[in-house]
Amino acid sequence: MDLTNTFKEVRAASRKLLQLDAETINKVLLAVAEATEAKADFILQENQKDLNRMEPTNPLYDRLKLTKERLQGIASDMRNVVSLPSPLGKVLKETVRPNGLIIRKVSFPFGVVGVIYEARPNVTFDVFSLCFKSGNAVLLKGGSDAHATNLAIVQVLHEVLERFQIDTHIVELLPASHDATAEMLQAVGLVDVIIPRGSSRLIQFVRQNAKVPVIETGAGICHTYFDAEGDLEKGKAIIHNAKTRRVTVCNAMDCLLLHESRLADLPALCAPLAEKSVTLYADERAFQVLEGHYPATLLCHATPDSFGTEFLDYKMAIKTVDSLQEAIDHINGIGSGHSESIVTENKAHGEQFCRDIDAACVYVNAPTSFSDGAQFGLGAEVGISTQKMHPRGPMGLEEITTYKWLIEGNGQTRNP
Amino acid sequence: MDLTNTFKEVRAASRKLLQLDAETINKVLLAVAEATEAKADFILQENQKDLNRMEPTNPLYDRLKLTKERLQGIASDMRNVVSLPSPLGKVLKETVRPNGLIIRKVSFPFGVVGVIYEARPNVTFDVFSLCFKSGNAVLLKGGSDAHATNLAIVQVLHEVLERFQIDTHIVELLPASHDATAEMLQAVGLVDVIIPRGSSRLIQFVRQNAKVPVIETGAGICHTYFDAEGDLEKGKAIIHNAKTRRVTVCNAMDCLLLHESRLADLPALCAPLAEKSVTLYADERAFQVLEGHYPATLLCHATPDSFGTEFLDYKMAIKTVDSLQEAIDHINGIGSGHSESIVTENKAHGEQFCRDIDAACVYVNAPTSFSDGAQFGLGAEVGISTQKMHPRGPMGLEEITTYKWLIEGNGQTRNP
Repeated sequence: MDLTNTFKEVRAASRKLLQLDAETINKVLLAVAEATEAKADFILQENQKDLNRMEPTNPLYDRLKLTKERLQGIASDMRNVVSLPSPLGKVLKETVRPNGLIIRKVSFPFGVVGVIYEARPNVTFDVFSLCFKSGNAVLLKGGSDAHATNLAIVQVLHEVLERFQIDTHIVELLPASHDATAEMLQAVGLVDVIIPRGSSRLIQFVRQNAKVPVIETGAGICHTYFDAEGDLEKGKAIIHNAKTRRVTVCNAMDCLLLHESRLADLPALCAPLAEKSVTLYADERAFQVLEGHYPATLLCHATPDSFGTEFLDYKMAIKTVDSLQEAIDHINGIGSGHSESIVTENKAHGEQFCRDIDAACVYVNAPTSFSDGAQFGLGAEVGISTQKMHPRGPMGLEEITTYKWLIEGNGQTRNP
Repeated sequence: MDLTNTFKEVRAASRKLLQLDAETINKVLLAVAEATEAKADFILQENQKDLNRMEPTNPLYDRLKLTKERLQGIASDMRNVVSLPSPLGKVLKETVRPNGLIIRKVSFPFGVVGVIYEARPNVTFDVFSLCFKSGNAVLLKGGSDAHATNLAIVQVLHEVLERFQIDTHIVELLPASHDATAEMLQAVGLVDVIIPRGSSRLIQFVRQNAKVPVIETGAGICHTYFDAEGDLEKGKAIIHNAKTRRVTVCNAMDCLLLHESRLADLPALCAPLAEKSVTLYADERAFQVLEGHYPATLLCHATPDSFGTEFLDYKMAIKTVDSLQEAIDHINGIGSGHSESIVTENKAHGEQFCRDIDAACVYVNAPTSFSDGAQFGLGAEVGISTQKMHPRGPMGLEEITTYKWLIEGNGQTRNP
């Protein structure tokens, strides 16, 4: 397969995108939202072809399935993106130098963004709307199980773009093959940044093979520390929500750290988890207080592997610590830098946790389940970055925008 | 060689750095500036050992050589860094969500920064002061030719840190061997980001071998476009300064693009370059008008290789274009995204150039030689990034700082 021509066309189209003003971009997005509803029958008919190829018992079936209502929700999300301020052309910094040079640091699109994701057709819309709003052309590599649906969606997008006389190459769907992914990962100079969303196997593959810069997402080994001065009721609600709201997502909690002075409260803290049949992997001290107070079939002894594991399941490790410092050191040592939470009524403890924990999202008295672009007020997100080079954490419009420095002179020259 | 223990000690020290406030950091930096002057004899004596191992005719000799005056200059640069505002703990964004969650995006150190550089002892001071001020621990891998000098400098740094009871592992010098570089490039989880400064060979090696995130610097294929409406006198000064101020640095000009309507002005534009014996690689149209007006021994026909080359020498390519658009397309196609300049009196042309050129630094009526942290008012710089993921362009304090999201709740949980 040789996708070089496709990449070149997308690169060329990305240059032309710079000429569109924010108003035009919003008009196009509104038209896309309208077309998503108007062409619902066509999209659903193509979606049915994908569904026919999957067992309805497959846990992915529901994520693949579109309905009229879901398409309306998608259109409404897109109108929400329209209502957000444009992230482009913002002057992030401005100085006039003693020699008269005016130097501005101005936000600017990456150019061509490649996104690799699973068989979730709603992501196709989300990624397009965020990338288009932020002036980026986009190469979509969706899961093969959703290929017919994605083809239909991109056809609808292209029809709208044609109506506005915009180069349709600003959004292209790649063939549903691993070769296409591999080729995109090597397209240095044509693709500016690649965002892989999905399993740790995919992210591992991308990390090993990419020559193009990658924004890593995904792996979330998330802790909640219940402090010596934690409020029991808040703790119960936070732990329950962080662990069981949705176990298959990256912000789900994996490990409870408990201050040893609160061991007596552990059965109460964990009681709501039993209702959801969460299996606990408890260290020795925690096991002893839980025994007899938590269903025996769901209570296991922790092994070294229990800690630093992303379960993505109704499973959770419990570790007893002697101090806040021990909790912080454990989290910084074994966490993935995604989302970490402390439950405490002691303000100084909360501040120390915020200062010393090295993670994208650090919570005080709230569950890690809030790590999400929409929940953060970013409108939507392309994913959650787990790296430190910008962007870090949820990636909304501003976060998928870079900048450049514009320097305005009047013939000044630099002395040796 | 096994540097894992060193890396672990630096990682641990970096965590403790979070506890220092901005005032303490400034006090330490002032003490380092003082010690740099007070210990000048010791540093110069060790520097002499390095100098004794190098031929004085070596072009690197002058960059390796320290003097009392140069150490005073270095101390004064450090005091300048003290006067800059701290980049840490800045609230970059703050929202209160409808559910009462307070979400803040707050600047935060990377943690451990590795810097690989050549035999330039002043860089050791610069990198330390910028990293320390921004709360980062630093692993230094300096050129082996300067190893005795760097050992002496780090000894002085450690003495000051000890006096303030700060863990001296916040700055460590690695052994002067390629193995040490290779090991640091693999230290995932212990080193947060590596900044290579130096030859394109070094940067190529780093790109191929790094498992740790890298901030690419360096390669600058820099263009100046002299527009149909360019001012001749400004053009002469800008081209001369951009090309000849210092030919071995990344912001030096490599290629002049000239609008065909200004071919008659080309001899005048290039006249100052002849004084510095700049060899010109001119395309056919440019060659014809220069012939007889520029020293024949310095005038060559351009070949395809003349374009897209970083000369780092008294050499320059010249290409004639028929339009501003052709100039933009050429630069975006062949440039390295470092620094690009337009000379024009036409405001709209300048704006189009600023909008459409995809580079870290885009100039109107000023030479690319200004691409430098100090010139931009950043105080100093760790290098110039040529990538698009943040940071891009000159890297001062803010640019070597990342951020995290702090979320303050009161027991809120997230609905499905």
